Amino acid sequence: MVASTGFVLESTSPHYVWDNALPPKLTVQSGDTVTFQTRDAADGHFQLNSTSADVATLEFRGHPLTGPVRIEGAKPGDTLQVDILEVQPGPHGWTTILPGMGLLSEDFGVPHLRIWDLADGQFAHLGDLAKIPIEPFCGVMGLAIAEPGEHPTMPPRRTGGNFDIRQLVAGSTLYLPIEVDGALFSIGDAHAAQGDGEVCVSAIEMSSTVSLRFQLHKDRPIHEPQFKTPGSRFRGSTGPAYVTTAHGPDLLANSKQAVRYMLDYLEREYRLSREDAYCLASVAVDLKISEIVDAPNWVVSAFLPLDIFA
Amino acid sequence: MVASTGFVLESTSPHYVWDNALPPKLTVQSGDTVTFQTRDAADGHFQLNSTSADVATLEFRGHPLTGPVRIEGAKPGDTLQVDILEVQPGPHGWTTILPGMGLLSEDFGVPHLRIWDLADGQFAHLGDLAKIPIEPFCGVMGLAIAEPGEHPTMPPRRTGGNFDIRQLVAGSTLYLPIEVDGALFSIGDAHAAQGDGEVCVSAIEMSSTVSLRFQLHKDRPIHEPQFKTPGSRFRGSTGPAYVTTAHGPDLLANSKQAVRYMLDYLEREYRLSREDAYCLASVAVDLKISEIVDAPNWVVSAFLPLDIFA
Repeated sequence: MVASTGFVLESTSPHYVWDNALPPKLTVQSGDTVTFQTRDAADGHFQLNSTSADVATLEFRGHPLTGPVRIEGAKPGDTLQVDILEVQPGPHGWTTILPGMGLLSEDFGVPHLRIWDLADGQFAHLGDLAKIPIEPFCGVMGLAIAEPGEHPTMPPRRTGGNFDIRQLVAGSTLYLPIEVDGALFSIGDAHAAQGDGEVCVSAIEMSSTVSLRFQLHKDRPIHEPQFKTPGSRFRGSTGPAYVTTAHGPDLLANSKQAVRYMLDYLEREYRLSREDAYCLASVAVDLKISEIVDAPNWVVSAFLPLDIFA
Repeated sequence: MVASTGFVLESTSPHYVWDNALPPKLTVQSGDTVTFQTRDAADGHFQLNSTSADVATLEFRGHPLTGPVRIEGAKPGDTLQVDILEVQPGPHGWTTILPGMGLLSEDFGVPHLRIWDLADGQFAHLGDLAKIPIEPFCGVMGLAIAEPGEHPTMPPRRTGGNFDIRQLVAGSTLYLPIEVDGALFSIGDAHAAQGDGEVCVSAIEMSSTVSLRFQLHKDRPIHEPQFKTPGSRFRGSTGPAYVTTAHGPDLLANSKQAVRYMLDYLEREYRLSREDAYCLASVAVDLKISEIVDAPNWVVSAFLPLDIFA
């Protein structure tokens, strides 16, 4: 059920680049709830009867994003808390191999398309062979960056964007660093399911309806997105976790940075010495490759299980 | 309970390098069970009353390994199946920061030691702050490599070794590629708990008693370790998984290779086209950084949840 109070933002006029000069579609207060319609990453190009031949005519202008939403009073240096209340999947999904993109682009030169019927609401079926649990989330959630001008939507950035983190399902809480007045939040690129890595460059791509609550924090600066996840709604987790992320073209550097953010968190929240935080990270924090295809920035996430704390 | 039938190999005369000329301590048949005692990675250097001052006097000769065990009839190109029946933790564990090692070696220049009392059998306690579930496994399981001479134990290799994969708990089944006559299996470096990544270069290090069953396969060659895990015994998984691994100094290259192995598996086991296998990997296979500290070879693992299959 979509929250009946709050604002609604339709997907009738999406934007296809990040640009902090885009006029806000909506202005809200800290504490407000907004329901977004989002278009799929191919902007409606693929339908239930599409085939691999239709991949050739796809023109990718950028992810169609719904927004921006201006948060009243948001200033650079503040943090935007985004509570993900609900993600409703669209009616069908698609997965495509796009020549020249994806982790194994040197191995796959021919376009390929798979259409998934999502009507059953619980599983995406791969013929009679497999059924993938639908665990919907948005691949893109982010804020305008400080640098002026138009910036492509493909790579994730300091303020979020196309980070394709599959644990950002309903029940999770996302934190984004604010770089411009009003924060300027946009969303899109919903996925019905995805593996950590999103190796072929597409997940089960779909449209969606998403309900979010925004809260503004003046006192807890961060440098890249972080999030809390309840752990009960998706495959691969059995408890709540706090997660730091780091993006960039080098997975080793990203791993270091994500761990440094986690040590900051452990020092601040649990009063651990940095040395003990490092040891605790080694024995209890898991490094996942959230995405390895949104060139040139890959995302490494460090997951701290919160149920270890008394 | 340790299996009462089968062979027992004590840890009285460990070896500290890989060398295919080492004489076997024991020869077994395919189907046999062996119980191994293993020493901790520091060869007993740290005791319950040790402090950070004791880190300075640690001399690391290599991981003390119990073995090698010769498997009768094993030939290069065969695969050794290792069923992990039981891992009994030792009485205490330690975690250390070693200057010059670990993911954040540039940040941490001072030796640091934490001792963990494992007597309660279920949790390792970090004071009153946190309790880490004891999920014991061996960081090192591997076979002698084809190249003659002595080879350090630190980096993982084609035949396994110090791969530090925390999901290799009791109930998991490991597959190792055989490169020498008799396979020559050794084991050591038990961990009471570890995060994916093992970022500070040590887990909760301990001695252990491990029970394994060996089976020889002539018909399923692999090029790097793979494993099945039941998923019910450790944090971060809710079902069984099949896992491919790839090692090397570059995480991006390892990710590609682990995914390629997974596509091979999906083609062979489920008769998927390579394109559909790639799409399925993108929507359902998770990339984890198993370890990022055993220089110069990091391990990336690709986890396929098996409960998606009908």
